[in-house]
Amino acid sequence: MTTRLQATQSLPGLRLEFDDSQPLPLDSGQQLGSFALQFTTYGTLNADKSNAILICHALTGDQYVAERNPVTGREGWWGSLVGPGRVIDPEHYFIICSNVLGGCLGSTGPRDIDPATGKPYGLSFPVITIGDMVRAQVRIVDHFGIDQLFAVVGGSMGGMQVLQWAAKYPERVFAAIPIATAARHSAQNIAFHEVGRQAIMADPDWRGGRFLEEQTNPARGLAVARMAAHITYLSEPALHRKFGRNLQERQKVAFGFDADFQVESYLRHQGASFVDRFDANSYLYITRAMDYFDLAAEFGSVPAAFKGTKTRFCIVSFSSDWLFPTSESRALVHALNAVAANVSFVEISTDKGHDAFLLDEPEMFAVLDGFLRGCAQHRGLK
Amino acid sequence: MTTRLQATQSLPGLRLEFDDSQPLPLDSGQQLGSFALQFTTYGTLNADKSNAILICHALTGDQYVAERNPVTGREGWWGSLVGPGRVIDPEHYFIICSNVLGGCLGSTGPRDIDPATGKPYGLSFPVITIGDMVRAQVRIVDHFGIDQLFAVVGGSMGGMQVLQWAAKYPERVFAAIPIATAARHSAQNIAFHEVGRQAIMADPDWRGGRFLEEQTNPARGLAVARMAAHITYLSEPALHRKFGRNLQERQKVAFGFDADFQVESYLRHQGASFVDRFDANSYLYITRAMDYFDLAAEFGSVPAAFKGTKTRFCIVSFSSDWLFPTSESRALVHALNAVAANVSFVEISTDKGHDAFLLDEPEMFAVLDGFLRGCAQHRGLK
Repeated sequence: MTTRLQATQSLPGLRLEFDDSQPLPLDSGQQLGSFALQFTTYGTLNADKSNAILICHALTGDQYVAERNPVTGREGWWGSLVGPGRVIDPEHYFIICSNVLGGCLGSTGPRDIDPATGKPYGLSFPVITIGDMVRAQVRIVDHFGIDQLFAVVGGSMGGMQVLQWAAKYPERVFAAIPIATAARHSAQNIAFHEVGRQAIMADPDWRGGRFLEEQTNPARGLAVARMAAHITYLSEPALHRKFGRNLQERQKVAFGFDADFQVESYLRHQGASFVDRFDANSYLYITRAMDYFDLAAEFGSVPAAFKGTKTRFCIVSFSSDWLFPTSESRALVHALNAVAANVSFVEISTDKGHDAFLLDEPEMFAVLDGFLRGCAQHRGLK
Repeated sequence: MTTRLQATQSLPGLRLEFDDSQPLPLDSGQQLGSFALQFTTYGTLNADKSNAILICHALTGDQYVAERNPVTGREGWWGSLVGPGRVIDPEHYFIICSNVLGGCLGSTGPRDIDPATGKPYGLSFPVITIGDMVRAQVRIVDHFGIDQLFAVVGGSMGGMQVLQWAAKYPERVFAAIPIATAARHSAQNIAFHEVGRQAIMADPDWRGGRFLEEQTNPARGLAVARMAAHITYLSEPALHRKFGRNLQERQKVAFGFDADFQVESYLRHQGASFVDRFDANSYLYITRAMDYFDLAAEFGSVPAAFKGTKTRFCIVSFSSDWLFPTSESRALVHALNAVAANVSFVEISTDKGHDAFLLDEPEMFAVLDGFLRGCAQHRGLK
């Protein structure tokens, strides 16, 4: 196997490139020959390689967890949790965050060139799963010679990866923090994803997935997909508090189809700004990976997925999250209890909905801080 | 004013045509010159014209409340509630149900010919409100010489019309039954509608609203709009019970973007069948009318809308309805209590979500039966 680690000029961070001498097996039965993973690291790996924390990003997230995103120019998406003086501090930990396989910010995905054809993969990219994403991340962890991650942390789809890590590679995960997530994607969540995919595929500029080759961009469809999804990330009370029925600057409704209400222009902005940074095919692949996620289907049952685990779990949910409601986290806790796992669980009261995991939530920070300190003590880190 | 009442050949039911000698004033400040209303009636108006019940349909409903829909071939949408031997029985009542203004099943809407141009209105149709829909219905009631409706009944947007009738024409409504509705459309509901509108307007076949002229049809956009809306009509438990993560006939996921899960093919079917029966511009106009609905904005406050009312109210909500949750109905009850109105309220326990109002709900039927019998006694009907 030839593996190349390099800093890239085009994107800040590190890149691991694998040639086709040791292809990545995929859950679909296909395999990926040569592929690359783009990631960031912060802090220093200690001598016994026991202080590594892997952070897993959500559907539209990326590896720029604690630094400015080079595409959007925005601060790291979890900069309030990860960074100097924060709960996950590079002073103490070696922190890794990788763009997921199938993504569009450096790791191999449908917009990359298929070596077999010399053209962008598009829909000829193999369908990937959460399991495949994690199997790829193992290569990064192996590259650093890390036998056991001190912790794996993530919210939403990031939380699915955390669960997959803990279920598939239990001896490699000392502590797991799945936040605002579930052991399987619900029917309602699959339904919302399907609406988004249909919106993209209905856009004539999608061109059956060949929009890069044909130099078009299904921006309208992708924007509609993002708008629909964005509603599910918030809560009705949060929308009401933020916007209510407030109108745009003019004081009266315009009796037309321009954005009259602030919530409309907010959503339109969410849609329009998303298409500048995200690949429509990546959106299809990653939503599909979430839909397919189902620990019980893979391991027989959720308790079976964690049987005999020594990993310490800290499960966090948010009271107003209706995409991954607390009931999903409770089901996880029950499954872990059923196998006598070491698990703590906190539901945080907030009206901010699913998005709360990305926001300044002092209670979440305090919970994670306490849990990680306790685990560090047990692990012999100071 | 020249008014023509006629049975139409193309659509079962009755049609009232108004010429431009007495245009319909609209809330936007515009007016409609000549226009038509298509409706159905069942039963016989009694001698003192005291037994009329007006039924108001929801967003994508129509006037075929108790008979086969001539477009879809499906049974009347409220045939389980309205009809011989049912709670609302044409043996006792004179029942009226009208296609709303702005609709696409006979009443004037954006797909009709604008007499000023000889072309379909498209977006030159004036934006209408729930108040305008009701103002048009008054013409039908006047046509029959009915001073006071015995009852006005409707769910969802139909319930908004019920509330508008009771607020604007209190002396003309003896009893009001608003079901699964609210005194104003919430920010989240506006957001979902906006996604649907953006999906339609993103479809190149929409042609800026001129698709009829240009002989195209924004079917893909309208299907996506319907799919997104349809999720909001159900509940997570109902989706889980109906579909869960069940796969299509094949036993394994296909690792592709065809419909793998039953919930996906169900949604696709909902979208595809909708575009055959509904006009995309009507969808824009009617969703907008719902968004604009806000009794407090029109009357100063919700209690002010009902001050001094003698109407008897029966308010019904469903426990799993998250589009028009019980809290909205409770707010209505509180407002009506604040003006000492005669109001009863029932929350019906069901996992069927917002759609419950259209389904066989024995408890709802029993509540309506009891309420209508009591009102009939008070009104001197037997």
